[in-house]
Amino acid sequence: MHLTASDIEGLERRKRAALINSITGYKPANLVGTANTSGHSNLAIMSSLVHIGSHPPLLALIFRPDNAERHTLDNIRETGSYTINHVHTGIVDAAHQTAARYPANVSEFAATGLTELWRDGQTAPFVAEAAVRMGMTLRDELPLNINGTHLVIGEIVSLEVPSEAINELGALDPAKTDSVAISGLDSYYQSSLLQRMAYAKPGKAPQRL
Amino acid sequence: MHLTASDIEGLERRKRAALINSITGYKPANLVGTANTSGHSNLAIMSSLVHIGSHPPLLALIFRPDNAERHTLDNIRETGSYTINHVHTGIVDAAHQTAARYPANVSEFAATGLTELWRDGQTAPFVAEAAVRMGMTLRDELPLNINGTHLVIGEIVSLEVPSEAINELGALDPAKTDSVAISGLDSYYQSSLLQRMAYAKPGKAPQRL
Repeated sequence: MHLTASDIEGLERRKRAALINSITGYKPANLVGTANTSGHSNLAIMSSLVHIGSHPPLLALIFRPDNAERHTLDNIRETGSYTINHVHTGIVDAAHQTAARYPANVSEFAATGLTELWRDGQTAPFVAEAAVRMGMTLRDELPLNINGTHLVIGEIVSLEVPSEAINELGALDPAKTDSVAISGLDSYYQSSLLQRMAYAKPGKAPQRL
Repeated sequence: MHLTASDIEGLERRKRAALINSITGYKPANLVGTANTSGHSNLAIMSSLVHIGSHPPLLALIFRPDNAERHTLDNIRETGSYTINHVHTGIVDAAHQTAARYPANVSEFAATGLTELWRDGQTAPFVAEAAVRMGMTLRDELPLNINGTHLVIGEIVSLEVPSEAINELGALDPAKTDSVAISGLDSYYQSSLLQRMAYAKPGKAPQRL
């Protein structure tokens, strides 16, 4: 199948959304926990998490203010605090359900059966069922004028991860935490390690570890 | 393992990079093809591709101008054109090798054995071995002042994907194209479909398709 720009423009709206949302490849599946200043919690599944830098440890999310993510964005702006929690194979049903358009006064924790976990120093709830949990502080927000979305950049200020899922170089192996990937808007994937590669250098053949 | 902000700051530099680069979960593995105005080609593996919107079809990449990606960024600025090509299980060794710091006059296509594919209307080469190929036109570049990286936003102006990898809703199933995911800087993962979910609605229990 070979599509031009006008072929893509001519696709029926839902087919275009399904195709373009899936075309980047595997996306990380994370639950973003927030609360407003009254402590009312909110939870949203997001697949747009991207690494911005390691020193300081910065991650970004893309928000579409017109959908179910808008309460999350409002809470982050209000408190500067949010949590990021990996979705694992055991909580996919509940994680996906957080995408429903609940009213602002309904907590997706209560609605989906996931458990709030509150920690000192973070005014947003973590997901107790998650194995990998990050406490975040808002550092910057950039409007992307090209289509009205927002890039929200935060710093990791706390990190919980099972020690047995960390390899000898200090990296997380997400297969060991049963973390899942998303494709498109509705498909969840389980992954296994195919190969690890040595640091690439010119003049040296690719080497598997 | 529970790390505070100062614990993360205190990690040895390479361990911090390994941990923070792996903490978002699975990342898409893509090869970004470019050429300068003389037609000299360049190819770089990148894991920061993120969906920005479907109408128009916009994707973004994060560039760190101080590493092997800088020639790619220079070429995109010079020509406004680039390609994005999924890495599949059969080309992981070559794809990873593009991360080596080759001089600007060395093409990573020639150095790694991957094949340039040129198409009318795109002044950047595709990867012939890839099953999913996107032709991109630069639409915007935003400097992220917080750490000196750059967000590069492009529009998909052509798209090649095997018809048999598209499901009934119009979405790509990346397992059918043997596309791989990356964790951290050196680990490649193979994935299989765990479950698909119906559109989530308040008051309706999560439903598997």
